[in-house]
Amino acid sequence: MPRQERAVRTRNQLLTEAASSFRRHGFSRSRLTEISRNAGVSSGALYFHFSGKEELAAAVEAEAIETLRSAALDVRHSRTSPLQSLIDTSHALVAALRSSLVTQVGLELNCDRHTHNHTDLRQEWHGCVQRLLAEADRAGALLPHVSRQAAASVIVASTVGFDVLGREDEQWISAGVLTSLWQLLLPSLVVPEHRAALNPAGTSSVFDTRSQDRAGSVRADGTAG
Amino acid sequence: MPRQERAVRTRNQLLTEAASSFRRHGFSRSRLTEISRNAGVSSGALYFHFSGKEELAAAVEAEAIETLRSAALDVRHSRTSPLQSLIDTSHALVAALRSSLVTQVGLELNCDRHTHNHTDLRQEWHGCVQRLLAEADRAGALLPHVSRQAAASVIVASTVGFDVLGREDEQWISAGVLTSLWQLLLPSLVVPEHRAALNPAGTSSVFDTRSQDRAGSVRADGTAG
Repeated sequence: MPRQERAVRTRNQLLTEAASSFRRHGFSRSRLTEISRNAGVSSGALYFHFSGKEELAAAVEAEAIETLRSAALDVRHSRTSPLQSLIDTSHALVAALRSSLVTQVGLELNCDRHTHNHTDLRQEWHGCVQRLLAEADRAGALLPHVSRQAAASVIVASTVGFDVLGREDEQWISAGVLTSLWQLLLPSLVVPEHRAALNPAGTSSVFDTRSQDRAGSVRADGTAG
Repeated sequence: MPRQERAVRTRNQLLTEAASSFRRHGFSRSRLTEISRNAGVSSGALYFHFSGKEELAAAVEAEAIETLRSAALDVRHSRTSPLQSLIDTSHALVAALRSSLVTQVGLELNCDRHTHNHTDLRQEWHGCVQRLLAEADRAGALLPHVSRQAAASVIVASTVGFDVLGREDEQWISAGVLTSLWQLLLPSLVVPEHRAALNPAGTSSVFDTRSQDRAGSVRADGTAG
């Protein structure tokens, strides 16, 4: 394997093992020696890539920021109506979470640490929801009595809840649970003639739909409903 | 002040300062010396009540468990219909969070630590939502196509999201935001003749309603909408 390719692969293995360790032990109790051992590399190799645990965590976070932003951008480029775009973006973000522990843990680090830097992914998501609801409103798709601010709050809180609960049980970040959210919210938000054209399960081909046939709910005992 | 009364007061001050310190610094970076100093007592007084930081955290958590369970119980004793009881319970829980930092931080500790003990407050809330939805269903209040499991998932995720977001900005645990959730969900859940009798802002007198005139939404910049 060429040297550069090997370096990229080692770096990715370190990010994956760091994410796994942060998830299991928390950031402060994670040990660099364990991370490098699990990645199958020497401590020297770890320090070739990262000056220490802080820089490793920052790299996990940066990876998540890039993954989530590009997942949202892919949808915006292929969008149909503002509301379908909002639904598709939520599915794309949750699919990105589902498919990568680095993305999950990087988002968690961002939520815990965003006061230290300039990126606040939850704030970006809130802004995105508000923009698309405003576009939907201009297109005449929202029911007249709907408060866009209130709707945005509920959408953001629900999706934040899915992310947080999904850290312990991946069923909470299944496409089915997210589809249920849209099925419950759309009748209160959207005028009937626009609603008929919307697919709460998402329409975009940019995200993995293989999990969409999974259960749309989670039981209190954590099993699929 | 009688000695016993003074001891209770000191213990409560220590719980309040511990909650405040855990919120600001996190559990692992909180220092007992700072907690006792801020509570205006000696280290000796702290150790009279608690063997150390772990026991102090367990006491904050226990206080939250008791407060939240009794808030929910008060509603059950005064309830009208299962759905109004569900709405009122959610308002009572959020009002309990709003009125006490010890409850907020104790719930957060419970969410982080419940694998160590037998109480999982989110699981209890999920169970409560499921029971009341099942009762509502038996009373003929739910629309026929509604999946109770899916509805419970969305209600739990939203309220977990409010709690988590409320740790940084109390507007997320305002009665107005919670009212918006019910306003958006009820039309998709409840048959019209039952819906007319429901008050999404809550009807119970057991919780503080003074904040209900506050904004029903939170802007992306964190200000009231």
